[in-house]
Amino acid sequence: MSGALGVAVLGAGHMGADHIRRIGGTVGGARVVAVADPDTARAEAAVAGRPGVRVHGDALAALDAPGVEAVLVASPEAAHEEALLAACARGLPALCEKPLTPGSASALRVVEAEARLGRRLIQVGFMRRYDAEYAALKSLLDSGRLGRPLMLHCRHRNVSSPPHFTSSMLISSSVSHEIDAARWLLGQEITAVTVLRPAPSSGAPEGLLDPQLVLFETSGGAVVDVEIFVNCGFGYEVRCEAVCEHGSAQVGDARAMVVRSAGGAREEVPQDYLVRFADAYDREVRAWVAAARRGRAEGPSAWDGYAAAVVAEAGGAALRDGRRTEVALERRPALYG
Amino acid sequence: MSGALGVAVLGAGHMGADHIRRIGGTVGGARVVAVADPDTARAEAAVAGRPGVRVHGDALAALDAPGVEAVLVASPEAAHEEALLAACARGLPALCEKPLTPGSASALRVVEAEARLGRRLIQVGFMRRYDAEYAALKSLLDSGRLGRPLMLHCRHRNVSSPPHFTSSMLISSSVSHEIDAARWLLGQEITAVTVLRPAPSSGAPEGLLDPQLVLFETSGGAVVDVEIFVNCGFGYEVRCEAVCEHGSAQVGDARAMVVRSAGGAREEVPQDYLVRFADAYDREVRAWVAAARRGRAEGPSAWDGYAAAVVAEAGGAALRDGRRTEVALERRPALYG
Amino acid sequence: MSGALGVAVLGAGHMGADHIRRIGGTVGGARVVAVADPDTARAEAAVAGRPGVRVHGDALAALDAPGVEAVLVASPEAAHEEALLAACARGLPALCEKPLTPGSASALRVVEAEARLGRRLIQVGFMRRYDAEYAALKSLLDSGRLGRPLMLHCRHRNVSSPPHFTSSMLISSSVSHEIDAARWLLGQEITAVTVLRPAPSSGAPEGLLDPQLVLFETSGGAVVDVEIFVNCGFGYEVRCEAVCEHGSAQVGDARAMVVRSAGGAREEVPQDYLVRFADAYDREVRAWVAAARRGRAEGPSAWDGYAAAVVAEAGGAALRDGRRTEVALERRPALYG
Amino acid sequence: MSGALGVAVLGAGHMGADHIRRIGGTVGGARVVAVADPDTARAEAAVAGRPGVRVHGDALAALDAPGVEAVLVASPEAAHEEALLAACARGLPALCEKPLTPGSASALRVVEAEARLGRRLIQVGFMRRYDAEYAALKSLLDSGRLGRPLMLHCRHRNVSSPPHFTSSMLISSSVSHEIDAARWLLGQEITAVTVLRPAPSSGAPEGLLDPQLVLFETSGGAVVDVEIFVNCGFGYEVRCEAVCEHGSAQVGDARAMVVRSAGGAREEVPQDYLVRFADAYDREVRAWVAAARRGRAEGPSAWDGYAAAVVAEAGGAALRDGRRTEVALERRPALYG
Repeated sequence: MSGALGVAVLGAGHMGADHIRRIGGTVGGARVVAVADPDTARAEAAVAGRPGVRVHGDALAALDAPGVEAVLVASPEAAHEEALLAACARGLPALCEKPLTPGSASALRVVEAEARLGRRLIQVGFMRRYDAEYAALKSLLDSGRLGRPLMLHCRHRNVSSPPHFTSSMLISSSVSHEIDAARWLLGQEITAVTVLRPAPSSGAPEGLLDPQLVLFETSGGAVVDVEIFVNCGFGYEVRCEAVCEHGSAQVGDARAMVVRSAGGAREEVPQDYLVRFADAYDREVRAWVAAARRGRAEGPSAWDGYAAAVVAEAGGAALRDGRRTEVALERRPALYG
Repeated sequence: MSGALGVAVLGAGHMGADHIRRIGGTVGGARVVAVADPDTARAEAAVAGRPGVRVHGDALAALDAPGVEAVLVASPEAAHEEALLAACARGLPALCEKPLTPGSASALRVVEAEARLGRRLIQVGFMRRYDAEYAALKSLLDSGRLGRPLMLHCRHRNVSSPPHFTSSMLISSSVSHEIDAARWLLGQEITAVTVLRPAPSSGAPEGLLDPQLVLFETSGGAVVDVEIFVNCGFGYEVRCEAVCEHGSAQVGDARAMVVRSAGGAREEVPQDYLVRFADAYDREVRAWVAAARRGRAEGPSAWDGYAAAVVAEAGGAALRDGRRTEVALERRPALYG
Repeated sequence: MSGALGVAVLGAGHMGADHIRRIGGTVGGARVVAVADPDTARAEAAVAGRPGVRVHGDALAALDAPGVEAVLVASPEAAHEEALLAACARGLPALCEKPLTPGSASALRVVEAEARLGRRLIQVGFMRRYDAEYAALKSLLDSGRLGRPLMLHCRHRNVSSPPHFTSSMLISSSVSHEIDAARWLLGQEITAVTVLRPAPSSGAPEGLLDPQLVLFETSGGAVVDVEIFVNCGFGYEVRCEAVCEHGSAQVGDARAMVVRSAGGAREEVPQDYLVRFADAYDREVRAWVAAARRGRAEGPSAWDGYAAAVVAEAGGAALRDGRRTEVALERRPALYG
Repeated sequence: MSGALGVAVLGAGHMGADHIRRIGGTVGGARVVAVADPDTARAEAAVAGRPGVRVHGDALAALDAPGVEAVLVASPEAAHEEALLAACARGLPALCEKPLTPGSASALRVVEAEARLGRRLIQVGFMRRYDAEYAALKSLLDSGRLGRPLMLHCRHRNVSSPPHFTSSMLISSSVSHEIDAARWLLGQEITAVTVLRPAPSSGAPEGLLDPQLVLFETSGGAVVDVEIFVNCGFGYEVRCEAVCEHGSAQVGDARAMVVRSAGGAREEVPQDYLVRFADAYDREVRAWVAAARRGRAEGPSAWDGYAAAVVAEAGGAALRDGRRTEVALERRPALYG
């Protein structure tokens, strides 16, 4: 392909608009040619100043628009399955914001459709794999210099949770990033989940079990603990320490400017994941564009999206019952190595 | 009291010798007047250059030596109960290295003896309470500025474990410090214990379950996770982050000299608790001497020693059974407020 | 302009090849259409895999090649003046790697040519202005929150110097970045230079005065000290602390992954400016492309390149004579505000 | 000596009272037996609760009081010479707060008196040598692991200056610590001084040249730059980076507790040197007591006090004249090695 990749973006909300800005901005080699959103006014606003981008109320119409060579799925999760199956049917590479679909059953249907196709077209938006610090950690672990990983200690904090966020969404929506990161960093599947529930913070909405301590056991005998605290009030923080046989490695304490003034020495804490992971999103979309121009997908797969869904569902059960819950995955199709 | 406090030191091993050096060295207001150790040659070596210090093979003889006004118990834990009961009987203030006694039953007997006496004579050697960073953390939590504590994340790492260290000693001997620190920092009792066991490190002796992730629930609804890793190979590290409703506070990453040279920017990690907590030991003994000169004990109490023993025993059961284990304490005598 | 900006790259050495890779890679909206290098084999190698890029032995021929809409000057500095005057003559926006030209006299000729033209076409490659940390520092200083800047403490270290590097090049080639950064951060001109010369490091080539401490006074009464050490042996480090009336702000200690293993806690130090400032180069070229597509130039100007040359020449004199040397700039043309 | 060292403390002001508290508190092996201050009420207040300590209005009377075996000079600097000569005459070990005396001429008289005596009795209160971080830096430099030191970058900041502080006192009173630290760390004499004067901070009292950048050249070819800023407003900060042939080492960024809350991640900056160097003062006095009990003095000598005075006077001239000023020391008596 010599020209820019023609992309249809489904969904013009927070993430969709950010991706539209990104494609043609910090990401070259691609251009947005169609945007779909039932709220077409919102879609129009997102493409303002970009002549030639067609706005659609219907996602499938956008996929069939002229010049569409790939699709970026940023619509609500309930719409993901249909969009992904349609992309597979049309042979269009797709980047799908997480979660893959709203649950493991639908995720499995997507996996099976892609497996039948026999080649990867879908990349799931687990952008941490594209963060420079996480990539350095992955590379260090893979090098074997520190020996086998024994534990991961993870912290995941948001300033505040959106309306309608439920206790199980702390796991399915937020910890899903750690589920993927742990599976990827360790190269292992998660086999059991336990959830400890401190008395909720007074800063959390009434009824929300926030924070939680989510514990994973893995197929290789590692243990992962995740603090998830979505109303911590002070910033967006994602930290991870990998404890290995011969040392530990820690990311997420990155420091930029230190300001000393009355009251102490201070570093800013980013308030938002679009700020903290801005470069990771850029790299993610850049990598997706590069692969899509070759007609394929790389990076986090539909299988990774499915596995995250199964683990999150086990986490939901563990949260409800207060018990250790085992995780049962289907057999992994050969396509996913 | 106008002269220096006359101290009998029981036990002239690693800790005992360190305390002998400390009293009269960095700690003023006290002098060692008697040392007891069945290995009298070791005791003689520990007091070399200190004319006038009497060496005994028998602990009780040392307590009865002329000029003894207080006793520092650094003998093997099996000898603690007899020494502490004897100190109570003689009205001698005692500083007892942790653990108070080898188990909760004997610890309770000491508690009951002191409670019958009706005044505190015993301080247990949980020296972290005297560490400047832990003290700052305690003070911050008590101030209420960050709201109620929700979680404590603790790391406790040793270069290597001594011979004969068993899997349950990771909890009873090492994590006992976090048990006390958590109870003290939070002002709450521990109510349940769960232990997760990663596949052991190849750096640990055959058969030793090292590392472990030990999880505590507390009477106030907080959750505490402790990584204990006694063969981490690279240093002695004790870190703690308190996650509260309005912020978090972290200690134990103290940084001194940063050296930049080929290979990166490096900070030294202390190799030993006597190095890491040297100042805390000084302050601990100084505070004990000050109280003992007034004929009393302050700081960590026999009750704290008893509670730590009960929690550690529950931890041992949790480790063995792989199950959440509840903690049942006796009624706290009025003496311990 | 709706298509990608057609760029001629002059020079296919280290920087030129890096920019060729960047344009069409991490930087969208532009494409390399011509490359000039007297060593055409080197130029061919730099464009391998890019069909349609024309290679020239002669710079002016490349400027006149079809489709050229802008020019990136990465040729040896002796060739800059001719290239920039030719770009001005053709109305082509130009990004010129630093230094603008080999000296202040030639730099002034470029300034005057652009001033006669009456609009800015030239951007000089002072990429620090595009570094996220420097940008945060600039923004903080401009906000006035810390009051007036009083001092800048700068460190600039390279692993080792290239062959033929001379003592005065520590200032003209390396410190030129601090000259620009100080002028930009403070919004002031440099008025005097003093250079202190420690006994050279045994790690520096025979005869090279390395390191040096270069001191600037500014028109607003600030003082800037720069450690330049081009054979420090351990890494590429650029740090800056701005000391202001109400506080200080420090950048360049950015920390990514901390690894604890035998020997201490370690952070990697980047070895190369192309690594340390990779994102800054991306942003620099992206900003240049965006402005060039509108037919103009922004960012560091030819005047900034001229001022840096004058200050560097004063620094050379100060180094030679061991004396404080005053800086005399020509009148600034209105074009440069 | 078997009992506690009997100490006369001259001066019951800020430092004197702190030392009185220290002796018998954190420092054992010594007891205050006499205190002298013209303001006897202040002296009485400083020894409240210490029965048996005699208060004198006259310093020499205190030296002659019964039980006095050593003297701690914390009186105003104008009184130091007489006190030190009297201590020498009586053979009493003395710890003298800096400066040794008000100027180099009187300092030389003290040096000569001690040299005639033929043994060291005087220790000057340059307490940084007893700070754990500075000691680690000294030890690293002496090890030769980083090669020869080339530069020291020093920062010295106070929240605010006391009344009547003059521009030259920034050097003679504050930078005197860096003068001693540089001489000690490098094992070299200072040979020349240059002072750069930024436009004063609006936070400094009218007429005070604050901050200053003070530059030293040394006999071994090293260069030392010192930012002195005594009205920085935010804290007491003392930092030092030693740049060597094979790496750099940095102290003074010590970090204790990190608090994350709205606004960022924050570390406290100490507000006062008695806080920042509390442990150093303890160690200093402890080391002095230990040597004094053997009838001698170690640590920073009268010669160090004299050299600091000469360098400070050169600094004053450099500040006044705006010129590089050479430093001329007398011949060093053999007593000072």
